[in-house]
Amino acid sequence: MNRDQQRKLARHVAVVGAGMSTFGMLRDRNSTDLFLEAFRDMTESVDNEFDPTAIDAMYFGNFTNDFFVSQSHWGAVLADALGHVPRPATRTEGACASSGLAFREAVFAIASGFYDVVLVGGVEDMSGRSTAEVAEGLALAAMPCEREVGFTFPGVFGVIAGAYFEKYGATREHLMNVTIQNHNNAELNPKAQLNRSIRKIMEDKTRYAADRGDPIPTWLDEKEFLRDAAANPVVASPIHLFDCCPISDGASCLLLVAEDIAHRFSDNPLHVAGIGQGSGRGLHAADDLTSFEATRQAAEEAYGMAGLGPDDIQFAEVHDCFSIAQIMHIEDLGFFGPGKGFRAIADGLTRLDSLKPINTSGGLKCKGHPVGATGAAQLVEVWLQLRQEAGRRQIPRDDLRIGAAHNLGGTGGTSTFTILERR
Amino acid sequence: MNRDQQRKLARHVAVVGAGMSTFGMLRDRNSTDLFLEAFRDMTESVDNEFDPTAIDAMYFGNFTNDFFVSQSHWGAVLADALGHVPRPATRTEGACASSGLAFREAVFAIASGFYDVVLVGGVEDMSGRSTAEVAEGLALAAMPCEREVGFTFPGVFGVIAGAYFEKYGATREHLMNVTIQNHNNAELNPKAQLNRSIRKIMEDKTRYAADRGDPIPTWLDEKEFLRDAAANPVVASPIHLFDCCPISDGASCLLLVAEDIAHRFSDNPLHVAGIGQGSGRGLHAADDLTSFEATRQAAEEAYGMAGLGPDDIQFAEVHDCFSIAQIMHIEDLGFFGPGKGFRAIADGLTRLDSLKPINTSGGLKCKGHPVGATGAAQLVEVWLQLRQEAGRRQIPRDDLRIGAAHNLGGTGGTSTFTILERR
Repeated sequence: MNRDQQRKLARHVAVVGAGMSTFGMLRDRNSTDLFLEAFRDMTESVDNEFDPTAIDAMYFGNFTNDFFVSQSHWGAVLADALGHVPRPATRTEGACASSGLAFREAVFAIASGFYDVVLVGGVEDMSGRSTAEVAEGLALAAMPCEREVGFTFPGVFGVIAGAYFEKYGATREHLMNVTIQNHNNAELNPKAQLNRSIRKIMEDKTRYAADRGDPIPTWLDEKEFLRDAAANPVVASPIHLFDCCPISDGASCLLLVAEDIAHRFSDNPLHVAGIGQGSGRGLHAADDLTSFEATRQAAEEAYGMAGLGPDDIQFAEVHDCFSIAQIMHIEDLGFFGPGKGFRAIADGLTRLDSLKPINTSGGLKCKGHPVGATGAAQLVEVWLQLRQEAGRRQIPRDDLRIGAAHNLGGTGGTSTFTILERR
Repeated sequence: MNRDQQRKLARHVAVVGAGMSTFGMLRDRNSTDLFLEAFRDMTESVDNEFDPTAIDAMYFGNFTNDFFVSQSHWGAVLADALGHVPRPATRTEGACASSGLAFREAVFAIASGFYDVVLVGGVEDMSGRSTAEVAEGLALAAMPCEREVGFTFPGVFGVIAGAYFEKYGATREHLMNVTIQNHNNAELNPKAQLNRSIRKIMEDKTRYAADRGDPIPTWLDEKEFLRDAAANPVVASPIHLFDCCPISDGASCLLLVAEDIAHRFSDNPLHVAGIGQGSGRGLHAADDLTSFEATRQAAEEAYGMAGLGPDDIQFAEVHDCFSIAQIMHIEDLGFFGPGKGFRAIADGLTRLDSLKPINTSGGLKCKGHPVGATGAAQLVEVWLQLRQEAGRRQIPRDDLRIGAAHNLGGTGGTSTFTILERR
């Protein structure tokens, strides 16, 4: 066993609250508004009486607010907004994995023995900028040599999709399976940004056409809709519009405490069973474009700490910034073998009511992707599912015990994997 | 005793290496070059054989590279540059306290039991931008309402200096004492950006004037030079040019390990005796402009953990972004009473050879202030002094045992205080 498979924490950590704002293009709300909404939602999720002054320290993930809303130093800004000054607040940044990182730091801060109660969350405020500005801003997270040759994120993931198709014989039809599944899940999530199934979108478009007196579309099924270049235009071949997550505003947060005091806060706390993190060199140095080294490292660390393997994970949120990414991640995390992910999805194995539900929230693709909020928001979904509080999208199993979340930053530069367990 | 005075770590942490790049306006070097220089310097400081693959994880502080050099995600970029992929790398941002934060996270990561060997550092690359762009960029670290009304950093510290003068009867002459002392120390530091004493600067200017055939200046002493509006123009009254730290490029890093394995790396490791962090609301909400709430909180936490008080700290680096800040910090940290700091400096008590040496490196004012590198660089100076390796600026005492570093972010939004001890 190598050193990454035997890391342990000196003190156990539990999650006792979790909440998020609605995700969407929310131009009338700023980052502080959004974070306070998530914080209120988290507060209501704490089973027992909760005094916010018990919070010892805070960690926040944020990626783009420096240049999108001209404000850095969000630790201090949010500490002030929450009335938490003078207690410490730290911002972490790892591109789209920023709050996956924040969660880990919160775990370390408690496991070190220094703090007992730590708030962790993330926020992003992106919709005030044009799509072109967002694309340019997000590209700051790519590796320097990728950025310098003009790669944007859809470009990178288009190349990756092409390589995957070439290597394993997948096609665009397989990407469509991801899109359809995530839209189906998001329709059951009232906080999701794109909360309609593809079928519902088709019905709506048909009705609008009729209302306007336009020709009535004649799509036979969801895939025919997704093949229609007018409905689903190409972005960076083979990636089309419906393969991409949207531009989003939103916030999320969780309350972590030392496990020995968790009962004070919660009747049903979740145990932090495994935390893992890895880094990657980007496309230019990758041996294989169809796998992320950072994710494999994160998985190895988290499984090692938890003493668990991929088969023990009953469901997961994974970082589907693009549909191809969801396929790669379920392979890198070991849920399915290399080149087997797209077939597993085609066979329905990752549906809400199947063997290994993936992205029950709708994923980044449909729940939305306010980048700094995403890592923590994925863990909010794991919290809801493990506590049987996910409403209409609840996984229909009464033995749910172990769920996980996978967060990716940049073009594979950073990855985190976190396993939560109900005891 | 309140909860902030009794925080302890479950596992002790030691510093076994420390290094920094030269600081300066280094336009031909990028952040990666600078960090690699600091890393090499750190490597040479490790007493025993050191295999860099022993590093389990990394933390980096950076503030402005997103918008000054159009690259975010420095965890991944530096992990790649160091050949450290796929091991985890995390960026922290808390404005000018970014690597003070990184140091704390590295301590937690080890104290939690998860990692044994962690690299921590910081970098900033600022000189490629104009002074106006830098002023605008740095202002993103102020609190939103300060930024919105057009405050820049010299403006904020000008207001603070005015309030301090009003409350305690200090004058510009007292600020000059800070400037003169820090230049004297920097002259002894070969890596300092402004490594000439004020007296040397006067001599140089006199010689240049003679060479050019200009009228020969007739300054009688350093204060007369600093009073000369041509030599030392006003920036934001009462702050003049020589009260301000420069725009800098640079990097710094330290190697932290679990104390129980420190002997493998070092014959003379330093014990992390205390770590503290606080947040603040900025000027608009401060009860008193002459004291930083965040610093008082950071000091309380660090002293509490260490079981030490201000009188036990034999020397310190403090965050002198402006001369007035140095006076305030030595009061907020308890070295001198409120309103007593400026007199202590005037009386020579903070000189290199006196009771409580402050900023032996030359401080931000003269060593330079590459913002993300500063917090870690302050600790590099504490390392050198405690190990009696500070060369010509070595504090002339053979009983040096306890030193500390204080790092401030923004207009008081974040502060860290770290106490190192030689055992």
